[in-house]
Amino acid sequence: MKPWETYLAEHRDAALTELLDFLAIPSISSLKENTADVAHAARWTADRLARAGIEHVQVMPTGGHPVVYGDWLHAAGRPTVLIYGHFDVQPADPLELWTNPPFEPTVRDDRVYARGSGDDKGNMLIPILVAEAFLKNEGELPVNLKFIFEGQEEIGSPEFVPFVGTHKELLKADLVISADGAQESEVQPVLLVGFKGLVPLEIDVYGATTDLHSGLYGGAIANPIHALVRILDSMRSPDGRITVDGFYDDVIDLTDEDRVQIAAAPFDEPAYLAELGVDAPFGEPGYTTRERAWARPTLEINGIYGGFQGENIKTVLPREAHAKITCRLVADQDPDRVYAAIASHAARYAPPGVRVKTNQLPGSAFPYLMPTNHPANHLVGGVLTELFGKPPRCVRMGGSVPVLMSFLRHLGVYTVTLAFAMEDERHHGPDEFLRLASFEKGKRAFGLIWEKIAEEGL
Amino acid sequence: MKPWETYLAEHRDAALTELLDFLAIPSISSLKENTADVAHAARWTADRLARAGIEHVQVMPTGGHPVVYGDWLHAAGRPTVLIYGHFDVQPADPLELWTNPPFEPTVRDDRVYARGSGDDKGNMLIPILVAEAFLKNEGELPVNLKFIFEGQEEIGSPEFVPFVGTHKELLKADLVISADGAQESEVQPVLLVGFKGLVPLEIDVYGATTDLHSGLYGGAIANPIHALVRILDSMRSPDGRITVDGFYDDVIDLTDEDRVQIAAAPFDEPAYLAELGVDAPFGEPGYTTRERAWARPTLEINGIYGGFQGENIKTVLPREAHAKITCRLVADQDPDRVYAAIASHAARYAPPGVRVKTNQLPGSAFPYLMPTNHPANHLVGGVLTELFGKPPRCVRMGGSVPVLMSFLRHLGVYTVTLAFAMEDERHHGPDEFLRLASFEKGKRAFGLIWEKIAEEGL
Repeated sequence: MKPWETYLAEHRDAALTELLDFLAIPSISSLKENTADVAHAARWTADRLARAGIEHVQVMPTGGHPVVYGDWLHAAGRPTVLIYGHFDVQPADPLELWTNPPFEPTVRDDRVYARGSGDDKGNMLIPILVAEAFLKNEGELPVNLKFIFEGQEEIGSPEFVPFVGTHKELLKADLVISADGAQESEVQPVLLVGFKGLVPLEIDVYGATTDLHSGLYGGAIANPIHALVRILDSMRSPDGRITVDGFYDDVIDLTDEDRVQIAAAPFDEPAYLAELGVDAPFGEPGYTTRERAWARPTLEINGIYGGFQGENIKTVLPREAHAKITCRLVADQDPDRVYAAIASHAARYAPPGVRVKTNQLPGSAFPYLMPTNHPANHLVGGVLTELFGKPPRCVRMGGSVPVLMSFLRHLGVYTVTLAFAMEDERHHGPDEFLRLASFEKGKRAFGLIWEKIAEEGL
Repeated sequence: MKPWETYLAEHRDAALTELLDFLAIPSISSLKENTADVAHAARWTADRLARAGIEHVQVMPTGGHPVVYGDWLHAAGRPTVLIYGHFDVQPADPLELWTNPPFEPTVRDDRVYARGSGDDKGNMLIPILVAEAFLKNEGELPVNLKFIFEGQEEIGSPEFVPFVGTHKELLKADLVISADGAQESEVQPVLLVGFKGLVPLEIDVYGATTDLHSGLYGGAIANPIHALVRILDSMRSPDGRITVDGFYDDVIDLTDEDRVQIAAAPFDEPAYLAELGVDAPFGEPGYTTRERAWARPTLEINGIYGGFQGENIKTVLPREAHAKITCRLVADQDPDRVYAAIASHAARYAPPGVRVKTNQLPGSAFPYLMPTNHPANHLVGGVLTELFGKPPRCVRMGGSVPVLMSFLRHLGVYTVTLAFAMEDERHHGPDEFLRLASFEKGKRAFGLIWEKIAEEGL
C-alpha cells in the first residue's frame, strides 16, 4: 500500500463523518429559500479544501450561487489538471417517498442515503480527500491541481458557464477531470464522451384582441390554438423526423463504430418500456431507441397552453396560445442557428389572421463530443480497467452538462469524467444513495490517475 | 288606441320601475355564489306573472336552476302560444369597464344600462306586461297563453332541455314565441330562422406513467403533447376545411337563395376585422365570412394544456396533454354522430406509444333551422313590417339556443323569435343597455301578434 493509500485507509471513518456532515446541508440551488444553504455548502467546501492543504482557496461570487476555487501548483514541469464538481443538489420532494429524511444522511447496508450522496457531493469530496492524503504524507502532489466547484449545476449553470469565459487564466489547465457522472454498475465502468446541447424557446400566437364567442366568430376568425397546433405539427413528420429546414444541417452522422459501441451497451427494451408504462417506443426512423436518446438531436414540446382549462367547456376562441420547446443538440449543431431555423419555420407556417412571436429562452448549451481515442480517455480507461477488471464502455448521454463545452471553448481542453456513483442510485429521486464501496474505489482511482499523468504526461 | 294600449301607456312608468327592480337581481347562472339570486329572480318572475292575472303559476325544480311556469287557457277554440324567455344573466366582469355598476340599473338618454337589460330581462318582461294589460282591461286574452321562463340559458340549459321532454303535456302548444333575441337595428327588423347546434368534447392523451426528463427520453418515447398536436392538426386542413371523415355528411348545402339572403345583411368586413384587431379573416374556402359564421359547421379548439406553463423552461416530456373542442353544427348534423366521427378520427391519428381518450361533454344541441316560408314567419313578419315600416330580413346565427330544437322535437312546433333588444346593445359585455323605445315597441308587437293569431289562426 502506498503512503497516500494508507492515509486514506486510516482516515476512512473520519472521511465518512465529513461526507455525512456535508450531505446534511440542504443546498438546493433551484429554491430561493435555500440560497443561504448553497452558500453554506460553498463555505464548507472552501474550508475542507484549505484543511487539505490546498492554496489560494476562495469563495467567488458569480451573480448567482457562488463558486469555490483553490489550487496547488508546485509540481514544476508536470501537467495541470482542473478538477470540477458541484455542491448544489436537486429538490428532495416528494418527501413522503424517502425512507429517511433527505437531509438527515443515514448509513444502511454499506450505503449512504441522502439527497446529493451520488449527485454530486460524494463524488466531489473524493479528490479533496485524496489531495489531502498526498499533501499530509508526502508534502506534495504528483501533478498541479486546480479545483473549481460550482453551486448551480442543477439549474443549468447560468452564471458559471460565462464565469469560465471570464476566468480563463485562473482556470487554465491541460485537462479537466469532472467528478460529476456515474458508472454503469459495480462491474462495468464507462467513459462518458458525449452530452447533448440544448436550446430552449417559446412560441406565442396571438389572434383577436379579446377572447371571442365560438358561436359568433368560430370558423370565420383564426383561432390561435389551431394556428399553434399547425405550426408545431409541421415541425415533425408523423413518424418522428424533424422537418424544420436546416435542423439536421450540422449534425455529424453516427459512424458504424459509434453504432456498434452504442449497441454494445446493455439495454432491455421491453423492460425499459414496461417501467415507463408505454407499449411502444417512438422516434426518428432509421435509429434504435438508444441512438435516438443518446446521439440524435430532438425537438420536444415541454408545455402547451391556451384558452379554457377548467371542467366541462367554455365556448371561446382564446386570444392567445403558447408553447415551450426544448431541442437537444448533437455535435456540431449550434443552439443559435437551430433557434433561428425554428423561428423562421414558425413564421412561415403561421396561417393568416394571427401574429406569431418566438423567443429563445435562457439556458442554451452547445453539444459536447470528445474523440473516443483522445489520450486522456486511454489514460483514464486504463485505470478504470485496473479497478473494475474490465475495460470501460464509451457512452453518450441525452442530458446536457453546459459547462463542458465552455471548458473546451475557453480553456481549449476536453473534460474526462471520473465519478463513482452508479446509474441505479436514484439521482434526483427519493432515497438517493451512494455505495460506500464506490466512495473507496473513487479515492483509489483519483490517486492512480494523478500518478499516471505525472508518469506519462498528457 | 286599443284599451290594452291605453293601459300600457298609463302604466309605462310603473313598468319601467319594475324592470329596474328586476335588473337589480344579480341572477348570474354560471356562478355558484349567485345561486340564491337566480332563485330570487325566479320568485320575482312568478310573483309578476301572478299579479298580471296568469294562473297556475309555479316555480318548478329542475335539478339545476328552477323554471317558472304559468298559463291562461280560457280562449276556447283559439290557438295556444307558449312564451319563452330567461331570467338568468351572464357574469358582469370586467366590472371596471362599466360606467355604472351592472346591478344598479341606470336610465340615461332613454336607455336602461344594466346586465340583463337586453339579454333577456327586458324582452321577457314585455309579454307579462302585455298579458296584464289585456286581462285587467278586457278580462281575457285573445289566445291561450303558456309562459315558461328558465334560469340557465346562459349556461346552455343543461337541465331545461330535458325538462321540455319530461313536461310535454304541460308545455303543449301550437307555436312557441321566444322573447330571447335581437333586432338588427331600430330601422331594420329580422326574423331569426337558424341557430347552430353544438357538440362539446375533450381529448386526453396519456404517455408514460410520470413526467420524463427530455434529455434522457426525448426523441425515444412518445410525447403526449406532440401526439395531441398531431391529432388536432389532422382535423383541419391548413386552409380551414374540416377533414374529419363524415363531418360534413349531413350538412344541408346553402341554396342560392340562402346565399343571397345572407349577402343582403349589411356587413362591413374591414370594420369588423379592425374591431377584432386582426388583419385577415380565416375560414373554410368557398364561403364568405358571414356564411362561415352563420351557416357552416365549425370545429374550434377552446382550450389546450399539458406540461410546463411557468416562466422560462422545464425540460420535461409531460405524462399527459388535453384539449377541449366545440363543434357548431348546422342542419341536419347530429351531435352524437359528429362526436363519434371525431372520436374515431382521434383514435386513428394517435401515434404509437400513447393512449388517447375522447369524451363527449354535457351541452350537446341539435341545430335549429325553421323554414323561411313557415306561416308563423309570415304572421310575425307582417307585424314587424307594420312596426318598422320595412319587412324583416331572414337571418341565421352562429350561436346556439339548445331549447329551440327541444321544443321542435318534443312539442312538434317551431319557435319564432320576437325580441326587441338591438344587436348593438352590448349583450354579454360591459355597459349592456336596452333602448326604452324598443321596450315600448315590443309591448305593441306582442299585443298585435296575439290579436292576429286570434284572427287568422295558426
